[in-house]
Amino acid sequence: METIIVRPIGLIHSCFTEKFGIPRQSGMVKSATATLELLPPFNREEMVRGLDFFSHIWVHFLFHRTVEEGWRPTVRPPWLGGKKRVGIFATRSPHRPNHMGMSAVKLVDIRREKKRYLLELSGVDFLDQTPVLDIKPYVPFSDSIAGATSGYTKIDQPRIKLKFSEQALQFCTSYEQETGRKIQLLIEEMIRQDPRPASQKGKKSRFGMLLWDVNIRWQVMGLQFEVLECRRIQ
Amino acid sequence: METIIVRPIGLIHSCFTEKFGIPRQSGMVKSATATLELLPPFNREEMVRGLDFFSHIWVHFLFHRTVEEGWRPTVRPPWLGGKKRVGIFATRSPHRPNHMGMSAVKLVDIRREKKRYLLELSGVDFLDQTPVLDIKPYVPFSDSIAGATSGYTKIDQPRIKLKFSEQALQFCTSYEQETGRKIQLLIEEMIRQDPRPASQKGKKSRFGMLLWDVNIRWQVMGLQFEVLECRRIQ
Repeated sequence: METIIVRPIGLIHSCFTEKFGIPRQSGMVKSATATLELLPPFNREEMVRGLDFFSHIWVHFLFHRTVEEGWRPTVRPPWLGGKKRVGIFATRSPHRPNHMGMSAVKLVDIRREKKRYLLELSGVDFLDQTPVLDIKPYVPFSDSIAGATSGYTKIDQPRIKLKFSEQALQFCTSYEQETGRKIQLLIEEMIRQDPRPASQKGKKSRFGMLLWDVNIRWQVMGLQFEVLECRRIQ
Repeated sequence: METIIVRPIGLIHSCFTEKFGIPRQSGMVKSATATLELLPPFNREEMVRGLDFFSHIWVHFLFHRTVEEGWRPTVRPPWLGGKKRVGIFATRSPHRPNHMGMSAVKLVDIRREKKRYLLELSGVDFLDQTPVLDIKPYVPFSDSIAGATSGYTKIDQPRIKLKFSEQALQFCTSYEQETGRKIQLLIEEMIRQDPRPASQKGKKSRFGMLLWDVNIRWQVMGLQFEVLECRRIQ
């Protein structure tokens, strides 16, 4: 078997409209939401019948924005401070052969909107417009492995202090009223997981980040993080 | 993005040389072993460097033996007694669009044999000769979800009594001496998870099953299972 042709069965509509800041794994930012739209000919109620018995699902997807960049035999994972190289198969980096990703996410709702079948997800780490290759139920007795070792991945966040400027707070309130999107909580969770690339820690102190159609400017002073300004892009 | 071309990065050499009896999920039969061979140009030590920090890995693979059978919008999962239909995306059935599977398995060893790079795995549910599309580390903090609900999947095995015939016992002893393969324990674990298809329970009482090059005949009388005969195929 030399090559195999696969095709998207769905498309992701996500709050992450650019790569910067996307959580390193699913589940890290609970407020991060996305809608998975089933594509024809898979946009049929019967294809996902019974999936709502499960609280979580696996989404297999394509790292579509790195396909053209190709793959690399080794990469420097952010967990190791961006300094040590490990094999691509020892990471979940997008720069892998076949460019396939997988994420365990919470299945919040399955709904129909005219002829569209939509899965509402949370705890996501998908870039907007990601093509979906497969959906599977999360099966705890085989997927949740007690005592599995975490290699070099560890959650060891410093206690980050976070504040919002007056402008940022006011923006969030009116944006939430207008769109129903809980952007303040999302910004908080995003920044608390410290989305700075390892290479930029200690070098830059000001950052910009795009969530939906909102550009967020924030700064870092030691362990004090501050959201300076939020503004809609046109 | 209409279609995507992927290609195997590895090949599975497994104890499961036919479909019948393969565990429904990985991890169910701990003694089930396989070797994952990296294929050129991915057969390089550096591609998996650091993977040995992790106790478990995800293997993405192709259900190669169902590609020609195509996909189905709904299937009857064995967990529901083979009677109720659910959507294909609410199952892990091989008859799915793109025919992609994934299993969390134990990484026992990574070794080099001349120019071949081999990953020794256990707790597998792969058919022999399965093409591998990707390898990823198992990351407990995102993959192991506390409190995820199991839908219709439940392990609720009746206490199966199992005995081996004199011939079967003797065969296992000499096969193990000759090959180093712990076939008796494997047969025990295979049968204790009751590999009968839901459709055949209560109808047939005698079954045949192939493990490596060994044909195993066994029978069921109520909750009493007996391994009748083991024989090497030519």
